[in-house]
Amino acid sequence: MSLLNEIKSPADVKKLPAEKLPELAKEIRDEIIQVTSKNGGHVSPNLGIVELTIALHRVFSTPEDKIIFDVSHQCYTHKILTGRQGDIFKTLRKSGGITGFCNREESVHDAFGAGHAGTAASAALGLAAARDRLGGDENIIAVLGDAALTNGITYEAFNNISKTTKRLIVVLNDNGMSISKNVGIIAQKLGDIITNPFRNKIHKDLDSFLQRVPGGKDASKFIEKAGRSIKDFFLPCSLFENLGFRYLGPIDGHNLVLLEHYLNFCKSSEEPVLLHVVTQKGRGLKCALENPEKFHGASPYEIETGESTENPNKDILSYQDAMGKALVRYAKKDPKIVGITAAMASGTGLCHIKKALPQQFFDVGIAEEHAAVFAAGMAAQGFRPVTAIYSSFMQRAFDCAMHDVCLQNLPVVFCMDRAGLSPNDGATHHGLFDIAFLRCLPNAVIMQPKNEDELADMLYTSIYSGKPCFIRYPRGKGVGVPTKDEPATLEIGKAEEVKKPEGSIVIWALGNMVAEAEKAAKILLEEDGINAGVVNARFAKPLDGELLLEHARKNSLIVTLEDHVKAGGFGSAVSEFLTEHNWPCSLKIIGWPDKFIPHGDNVASIRELFGLSTRQIADQIKQAWSVACKKD
Amino acid sequence: MSLLNEIKSPADVKKLPAEKLPELAKEIRDEIIQVTSKNGGHVSPNLGIVELTIALHRVFSTPEDKIIFDVSHQCYTHKILTGRQGDIFKTLRKSGGITGFCNREESVHDAFGAGHAGTAASAALGLAAARDRLGGDENIIAVLGDAALTNGITYEAFNNISKTTKRLIVVLNDNGMSISKNVGIIAQKLGDIITNPFRNKIHKDLDSFLQRVPGGKDASKFIEKAGRSIKDFFLPCSLFENLGFRYLGPIDGHNLVLLEHYLNFCKSSEEPVLLHVVTQKGRGLKCALENPEKFHGASPYEIETGESTENPNKDILSYQDAMGKALVRYAKKDPKIVGITAAMASGTGLCHIKKALPQQFFDVGIAEEHAAVFAAGMAAQGFRPVTAIYSSFMQRAFDCAMHDVCLQNLPVVFCMDRAGLSPNDGATHHGLFDIAFLRCLPNAVIMQPKNEDELADMLYTSIYSGKPCFIRYPRGKGVGVPTKDEPATLEIGKAEEVKKPEGSIVIWALGNMVAEAEKAAKILLEEDGINAGVVNARFAKPLDGELLLEHARKNSLIVTLEDHVKAGGFGSAVSEFLTEHNWPCSLKIIGWPDKFIPHGDNVASIRELFGLSTRQIADQIKQAWSVACKKD
Repeated sequence: MSLLNEIKSPADVKKLPAEKLPELAKEIRDEIIQVTSKNGGHVSPNLGIVELTIALHRVFSTPEDKIIFDVSHQCYTHKILTGRQGDIFKTLRKSGGITGFCNREESVHDAFGAGHAGTAASAALGLAAARDRLGGDENIIAVLGDAALTNGITYEAFNNISKTTKRLIVVLNDNGMSISKNVGIIAQKLGDIITNPFRNKIHKDLDSFLQRVPGGKDASKFIEKAGRSIKDFFLPCSLFENLGFRYLGPIDGHNLVLLEHYLNFCKSSEEPVLLHVVTQKGRGLKCALENPEKFHGASPYEIETGESTENPNKDILSYQDAMGKALVRYAKKDPKIVGITAAMASGTGLCHIKKALPQQFFDVGIAEEHAAVFAAGMAAQGFRPVTAIYSSFMQRAFDCAMHDVCLQNLPVVFCMDRAGLSPNDGATHHGLFDIAFLRCLPNAVIMQPKNEDELADMLYTSIYSGKPCFIRYPRGKGVGVPTKDEPATLEIGKAEEVKKPEGSIVIWALGNMVAEAEKAAKILLEEDGINAGVVNARFAKPLDGELLLEHARKNSLIVTLEDHVKAGGFGSAVSEFLTEHNWPCSLKIIGWPDKFIPHGDNVASIRELFGLSTRQIADQIKQAWSVACKKD
Repeated sequence: MSLLNEIKSPADVKKLPAEKLPELAKEIRDEIIQVTSKNGGHVSPNLGIVELTIALHRVFSTPEDKIIFDVSHQCYTHKILTGRQGDIFKTLRKSGGITGFCNREESVHDAFGAGHAGTAASAALGLAAARDRLGGDENIIAVLGDAALTNGITYEAFNNISKTTKRLIVVLNDNGMSISKNVGIIAQKLGDIITNPFRNKIHKDLDSFLQRVPGGKDASKFIEKAGRSIKDFFLPCSLFENLGFRYLGPIDGHNLVLLEHYLNFCKSSEEPVLLHVVTQKGRGLKCALENPEKFHGASPYEIETGESTENPNKDILSYQDAMGKALVRYAKKDPKIVGITAAMASGTGLCHIKKALPQQFFDVGIAEEHAAVFAAGMAAQGFRPVTAIYSSFMQRAFDCAMHDVCLQNLPVVFCMDRAGLSPNDGATHHGLFDIAFLRCLPNAVIMQPKNEDELADMLYTSIYSGKPCFIRYPRGKGVGVPTKDEPATLEIGKAEEVKKPEGSIVIWALGNMVAEAEKAAKILLEEDGINAGVVNARFAKPLDGELLLEHARKNSLIVTLEDHVKAGGFGSAVSEFLTEHNWPCSLKIIGWPDKFIPHGDNVASIRELFGLSTRQIADQIKQAWSVACKKD
């Protein structure tokens, strides 16, 4: 670790002689592998971008210059080089530690935070427009993965860049992957560019030339000349030149000499420039190279074998697999059922239908809006699309859910995975807002299952409901119940009394919180002799008004419990309903507070921090009960 | 009206001899002008697309073939030709009449509804994927304005089209405008194509050839040949060919012979094809040609002069002008204030800053997501961006509001115009969901002014608040109060007691509903002797909890009144708050129901239909009061 120990800031990276850089890159890779093998993280994207990040910090000077990483899960080398190495880096993604993303609060070197794809070019243009108006001369660099090119916001930004500023650098870090292999015509065009043999020959010649005269002024001139001559010879770059960029590349993203030279050329460019850099995802780690999708974002692993070192019970199905496998069962019997994902086939469990019924599967890239409208188009033709999008990314498709799906009352099913916490990723990835932003939409049906078998029922019910349905469920393992052979059709808007109330307290819990409600009820009974009822609410919309009114009439306190913010959530809906119906029973809403919830070790530790452990839930209920009793 | 009278369905359009078509086009233009001069509507876009729509219905056969209009405000000719002419067309945009947009419930010829831009290509691809799987042979045609090319969803769809289907036709209706003149590099590239003299010459020759041999098989072959030869000569089409389309055009969109020939060629194409059609917005109406922005969407007008025939009080400032003018005053003193719009400079009132301080103004095209992230980027550099986006279009930027603005706690101000009803446009344009989807976001401040002067105060307060702020206000005139010379800084989260309550009822009204609350209070006093208090809530988030609790302690009934759906809105927030604080006073939430609200003559008529006239509000309060009294 000798070189890394000396790197206290990017200035130290610049001081290193060029011949030491491969050693630095190796140390960084080792550090990333060591830490992610223990903490998990975005292993492969970070191993691919080590040299590019070193070169960026040698050519540019943060925090004056601004480097904006798209999605920013590839920022580990950047963190290591900007004062967050060693003991700090060891806290990556852990409670109280540094985040796995760029974060303006964490470091002045993090010019802009991100966790969702496609925003870097837009944000960079905002920074550039501000710089231009202030007469500044700092460099603004947006580092995009090729997956960002599947996302519409990137194009909205590209359409504006060349008309807004003369100085903006886009570095396209092209590894041919988003999470899965990239899709669409743009991915193909990038592939065409990379594999063009003539272009490759020119770059090889250039490379060997540069190896001989490193850093010379003549080299830059030569590149400029070569860059132009490439342009004059053939035009695969028209893709980006039509979008107003001067195009450079593709260059080998692991060749530090080439990277520095090209980045220096970009720095001097007086028009917006796009540098196309080809990198290898997972470089330097055998298991990651062999299994790129698993190691895109991995849980802790054995470095030698790539085996996960966390040992969740293999007999328990995850919600993702439960959904994916149920979908295959249903889709085999009904060819009008299709699965649609926005670059998340394995994360959502749609990998099962992708494999079993490829004709009934669509991966549209990181394009949640298109996924939703495309699904609406298929539904308009009588298909039964199931669109699986993480809860936090569903935010992207909100207008489409309103304008294309709910307004036209089209039967699209949205499976919103990762509803609740994504503990190690943190605020950008927690899915804590979906009920609030969806339940205002007329025609929307919103539900959450208490376990993986009920998820299969809800999926089946939704597919044949003829309504826009939104099913939310958390990341990870279900509760371990077996799945029925034949799914049940649930009555929409009907809750399930898990434990009948007896006049005191009844806990209306949604989805994964039903188990918590049962545990809390047990505490109440054991410690205070209160026999609280428990309801599996099932639907956040429509509510089971009949049962709610009955409970409100016969009990002193209703408690709602949800894995969602309190503002506008399930409890809020219950509150509205009881208000509308003038029932004077007390109501206690338990859920996440009005704060962005940070990352942490695991679900339990974060819940504890915000008063949502089982013990704390029971105490909250006891407290509300004592107030309710005083009122009576 | 002789020709139009005979057109009962698209089949009748096909029967007409070609030489009659110019006459049909003229009759349709007259009809559109007559009806829009009385009802208002999207005059210019519809006058531009008459010939193209006729040609579409001669070449294709709806409802089997599917024509999907992007935004669909240009669908009037389509409606006229598909059984909605004459008396039906006269009801355009009126209560109980036909909508100004495509609508699946209205006609089988409307394959997909829309009101927001950028969705047509996505929806068309959904229809095409469904067709391919069913082995159908119908044609799917997406008709996009060039403005759709400023929107990211279009690109997300384009990226997927050629990899998903072999048969999809995109017709690019290029009039160089969205609402304002189009922005960005794509608009420039389209202009470059159109003005290329060599290309124009080829098309002129082709045109004169076709005029001689209309409909002949040879002509199609010739076009095919010419199409190819154009491609071989030069490559301005690389813009679309990089996106996987075969590109054809540009052709004169008012030349029916040419249109039919090209569309026939598209019909036979076995790869996705994009036909570039150049049209003139407002064609055939002098005042519309002279004032394209005004006549994009116009209120009733005098045909000869273009003067508006509605005579709103000219002394009363609209909310839009109040915002726009206040922004200019503030921005003149502070160069870090900038105005950002997504193609809505005149609709939002940002036209004022565009004119007065062009260096402090950005129009980014119909790209709400980019607008929000770009603003966040500027804010990250210490600027004070004011981003004006209609409430209903703000839905597009929801994730960016969360991920880029609120999560980073950046001081971006969103001015959400059209909060409340856009009466003639209807469900796609009403802004009734913004509080619900925004108030779940930590750090967000949400407010609504009671009048145009308070809007100026809120704008000023927001700009210097250091917080993400969302100001909502309705379309149209303010209440007629003068604007103070110097704006006041409002305390965030503080409400204003307009009329002190006296122990019975207190009405907490938000924004434009304060005036309604005052009128309702007057009715209560006059008819029942109840002296109800009135509060100008100002903030939907954070609530003035202190005053709310005081009122809850001292009054029997709190009423909330908002121009927003009840589900998740302002009243919902009050309900949550009172629940949290255990105050047992009664609460009545008044707002829009959980239904998509249709279009209608005006705000008053639609409110009446949903129980929200002043009289009905007063009656709702009386009813709630009688229930509350029984409880006491």
